[in-house]
Amino acid sequence: MKLIECVPNFSEGRDNEKIEYIADAFRNKNGVKLLDHSADPDHNRMVITAAGEPQPLKEAVVKAIGRAVEVIDLREHQGVHPRIGAADVVPFIPLEDAEMADAVALSKEVAAEVSAAYSLPIFLYEESAQKEERKNLAYIRQGGFAALGERMAKDPAWKADFGPEHIHPSAGATAMGARKFLIAYNVNLKSNDLALAKAIAAKIRTAGGGLPSCKALGLELKEQGIVQVSMNLTDFNQTAIWQAYEAVKEEAAKAGVEVLASELIGLTPLEAVLECTRHYLRFENLDLSKILDLKLK
Amino acid sequence: MKLIECVPNFSEGRDNEKIEYIADAFRNKNGVKLLDHSADPDHNRMVITAAGEPQPLKEAVVKAIGRAVEVIDLREHQGVHPRIGAADVVPFIPLEDAEMADAVALSKEVAAEVSAAYSLPIFLYEESAQKEERKNLAYIRQGGFAALGERMAKDPAWKADFGPEHIHPSAGATAMGARKFLIAYNVNLKSNDLALAKAIAAKIRTAGGGLPSCKALGLELKEQGIVQVSMNLTDFNQTAIWQAYEAVKEEAAKAGVEVLASELIGLTPLEAVLECTRHYLRFENLDLSKILDLKLK
Repeated sequence: MKLIECVPNFSEGRDNEKIEYIADAFRNKNGVKLLDHSADPDHNRMVITAAGEPQPLKEAVVKAIGRAVEVIDLREHQGVHPRIGAADVVPFIPLEDAEMADAVALSKEVAAEVSAAYSLPIFLYEESAQKEERKNLAYIRQGGFAALGERMAKDPAWKADFGPEHIHPSAGATAMGARKFLIAYNVNLKSNDLALAKAIAAKIRTAGGGLPSCKALGLELKEQGIVQVSMNLTDFNQTAIWQAYEAVKEEAAKAGVEVLASELIGLTPLEAVLECTRHYLRFENLDLSKILDLKLK
Repeated sequence: MKLIECVPNFSEGRDNEKIEYIADAFRNKNGVKLLDHSADPDHNRMVITAAGEPQPLKEAVVKAIGRAVEVIDLREHQGVHPRIGAADVVPFIPLEDAEMADAVALSKEVAAEVSAAYSLPIFLYEESAQKEERKNLAYIRQGGFAALGERMAKDPAWKADFGPEHIHPSAGATAMGARKFLIAYNVNLKSNDLALAKAIAAKIRTAGGGLPSCKALGLELKEQGIVQVSMNLTDFNQTAIWQAYEAVKEEAAKAGVEVLASELIGLTPLEAVLECTRHYLRFENLDLSKILDLKLK
């Protein structure tokens, strides 16, 4: 059975009623499982992790995006995370028995459907991109909602892959595409120095000559009065979670700043956690075959 | 469905034909799953991890012990690990839906059956013990095969709980009982100083005023030319794997000795591994709900 994961990010992380309304689109539906959802008030953003067979998953995603368009108004949105839309970014990831081509196909089917149903411009990114430069999510998202709206209005090169020529007045636009599994991992610093968090992010990310397969942003968590290095590890065989942690810790230490805590957004493959324990305890033989919970399934 | 785990330790870790012959008793049997088996040539010992419903599990364990009695001769046994029998120690552990009382009952049924079938003296230990002092496996096993044989011959207080009055000439005796889940965890040192390994074990184990719920022995791994602190963590909520590792590392460092590696014998609950990653990465939110592999099951 082909299994696809979808990890849509919606621009609502504060209003619990709206959060649940959107998440509910993935509940009580045959062939789809809501695996996780978490909302962050500072980011003002929620991340859903769902998995399912392509057809029922498509139906759930279309429904959820419709609900996001209905209840989120980007013009009133405040939050530290960059965004272009109510349904900001919707990645599809091939899991068991599925290939990247299956995820690409599904992303385009969903794009066609939601763009028509909700007058929502869709930019295809990563493996689904139809233009080389759109492979990079950051390129599409540069400047956020307002700037993308201006680019679309003025520059024909910024025509969306699906949907209307102009940005949706309240729901913005959506980046949609297929990609490999990604670990969203944040390290919080015992500091409120945003410049430091940004400098660390710039140094450790792949684009800055840092860790391979690592995207990073420096963000401020105002409610907690601290800053965060927010990372996407796009290949944990290249950069393990512990390597990302140690890199942030080392750079922070140079500025005399300590790590406060770290956190996962969404899910992680178990293998990526085992690799951390293997590293710190110099484990010779810790692998999936040693885990009682998996053996009993 | 009640599920019981059995982790029998057999005194054969070198002859692969004998190892497989014994392990095979747990294969291809409805209601029983062979989860893991590992053999150590220095210990000259194998550890099987199996789980199943009480009745079929009992049949498999009885068969395996019979095979161990058949092919292992303790009089010719060499190995660094203390032992009293071919089937040295046979613990039963309650898993899903099972209570400790179920594991105790099963241990006594198996004890009755194997003692009659193979003329094997059985000493009930831990939760199954019928005498206070026999709760402690080390008490039963003191001095090993030869010494236990002498005690049984001379001292009526050393009558076995099941089986004949005298030790089995080639297969010795078996300690059998119910206990909580235990993590068997070894830390290898970059040293051949057995006295150091023994001193570290004596210092960190519960009996020496060290870590709670921790049993430890210092052993020599002659084939590798190193020494090992071999531990049983009987409650990983009391002493986590990382705490055991750090305690050994710290004591070894005082003698200028480094840790070479660490290893699990048998299986571990995933929660115990997550706790290690949580500790070293200061994780705020790493729990079973974050593990993709479990969510997809």
